[in-house]
Amino acid sequence: MAQKKAATMKNVAALANVSIATVSRFLNGNLDRMSKATASHIQDAINQLNYVPNSAARQMITHSSSMVAVVVANIDDYFSTELFKGISDILEANHYTGVLFDTDSNRQREVDLIKTVNEHTYDGLILQPFTNDVVQVQNLMRRNIPVVIVDRELERSPWTQVVTDNFDVAQKATRYFYSRGYTHVVVLTSKIGQASTRRERYAGIKSVAANVDVLEVSEESYNHTQVHQKLVELITNSTEKTLVFALKERWLLEFIPSLIFQGYLDNEHATATAFSDTATAKDIEPRLKLISQNPYLMGASAAEVLVNTLTGKDDHPQGKLVIPAHLK
Amino acid sequence: MAQKKAATMKNVAALANVSIATVSRFLNGNLDRMSKATASHIQDAINQLNYVPNSAARQMITHSSSMVAVVVANIDDYFSTELFKGISDILEANHYTGVLFDTDSNRQREVDLIKTVNEHTYDGLILQPFTNDVVQVQNLMRRNIPVVIVDRELERSPWTQVVTDNFDVAQKATRYFYSRGYTHVVVLTSKIGQASTRRERYAGIKSVAANVDVLEVSEESYNHTQVHQKLVELITNSTEKTLVFALKERWLLEFIPSLIFQGYLDNEHATATAFSDTATAKDIEPRLKLISQNPYLMGASAAEVLVNTLTGKDDHPQGKLVIPAHLK
Repeated sequence: MAQKKAATMKNVAALANVSIATVSRFLNGNLDRMSKATASHIQDAINQLNYVPNSAARQMITHSSSMVAVVVANIDDYFSTELFKGISDILEANHYTGVLFDTDSNRQREVDLIKTVNEHTYDGLILQPFTNDVVQVQNLMRRNIPVVIVDRELERSPWTQVVTDNFDVAQKATRYFYSRGYTHVVVLTSKIGQASTRRERYAGIKSVAANVDVLEVSEESYNHTQVHQKLVELITNSTEKTLVFALKERWLLEFIPSLIFQGYLDNEHATATAFSDTATAKDIEPRLKLISQNPYLMGASAAEVLVNTLTGKDDHPQGKLVIPAHLK
Repeated sequence: MAQKKAATMKNVAALANVSIATVSRFLNGNLDRMSKATASHIQDAINQLNYVPNSAARQMITHSSSMVAVVVANIDDYFSTELFKGISDILEANHYTGVLFDTDSNRQREVDLIKTVNEHTYDGLILQPFTNDVVQVQNLMRRNIPVVIVDRELERSPWTQVVTDNFDVAQKATRYFYSRGYTHVVVLTSKIGQASTRRERYAGIKSVAANVDVLEVSEESYNHTQVHQKLVELITNSTEKTLVFALKERWLLEFIPSLIFQGYLDNEHATATAFSDTATAKDIEPRLKLISQNPYLMGASAAEVLVNTLTGKDDHPQGKLVIPAHLK
């Protein structure tokens, strides 16, 4: 590997013919008592020497890294990555860098990642929580930096939360299909108890339909063939018309295509809907009516709240921001 | 927001009844001249006070953050996220945390992100480059930390590269279909010139077939309907049997389903293949033969090289590690 002798602040000071203290003031943006000529000499020296300020030292002085940590539930889900795109764009426009941590649907990993964020000089945290335990998050996040929760709600959260209207839109969608005769619902989901979003969606469905089967798929290891077989059974054994309701896009994409191809989902005896944000499902079957959230907008909104706190525009943001989803 | 008065090293020293210097030695793992009882008192005090070491200060002493920066081309692509999963698992097993930066298919953003990584105390960098310009990366990455390049090759790279056998497997796949009468190939791809992977795959295809059309889709903004229409034209106007060859999974998932549904891809007059790693495409059409890379293994291999450098097991790793892909 190529070895390079790094330039120091002393080298910059010598080349610009100023004191180290002056270079330090320049690097910290204290230009009030500095002539334009001096500032320009220092900048030239920095460029010429390819000087990179020692960020650890600078961070101790400014207490700011301009990096915001974003901890998401699972980057395998389009929802999580799109959330990050929205966050990242807003942060970038405000001269912050969004840095992504992936919980990988693993509770211990989430704990470790929040610890890591706490121990390093990130300026803020945006969390799509995998846990339900707000006290645990508070205990881990001991540094007093701004935090925003997004997507999954934490009960009694001391931080602003940006969420979808999960109950309402699930209820609305179920009503839509129910009124068209789909009185039997098969819910296709990861473990319902694990996330507030799932519990609320499920409650929204149950508030309309009485005949509801639940098919829980494990995130870590699942038997595709077995779930598929069970789906087929639930559809064919039902005397009522069946709605397969996937609580997340991934399960729609993994199970619905084969059901369509094999003729089980004919949009007559059985149909499907899902929380789904990509174009892929519509490419597979343009007639599907799906629930479209807006993860990009949710991320952007969360980042805006955080930036407002960081820049002092809003000192104590609180409460809940609800971004509506749509059946379309 | 709840205010907490953070414990200091001084508080820990007082409670453990030792000097601040001793606490500092403990935090830096210098336990040689320290009794077990003293170490255990300090640990107890840390637990009791919920003391979090000031990482900026610690980083200045140890020059290590235990975080490895991973800069990927676009987290919208399953390949990039799966790469990160492989990297992350190996890093975690070695007590490092993988931290993800998303270039978002944007050249300026890649520059900014590498700058950010350079200016902060990450212990290493794994880069899936969007750029082709190795000199630019070298100029940005001035800190002398280990770097590993993955997926897209940089000419004259001074760092180890972990890549797929792009040319070979594209050639092999084209031969497979060519020998079955598919002598006309439509290549569905993002801008070919932008990435070494695409250039090599294209060259592999051209080494077998003479009649090759290229349909370039813009990453940023594309007209789905127009590309679809063009695909239909190229297939229906061809007197030879057509193979649609998507150089990445995303284009397969966005365009192939509607072609199948509308009867254009009948596996007789026309068929399709792609570099594709998820199960989704097989769910849509189980008869498709696809090229399966192994992004998880590529990521894991890159992380292993990096960890070996960080831990001094391998001081000057060089050259190229080729992870084979398979048509299946």
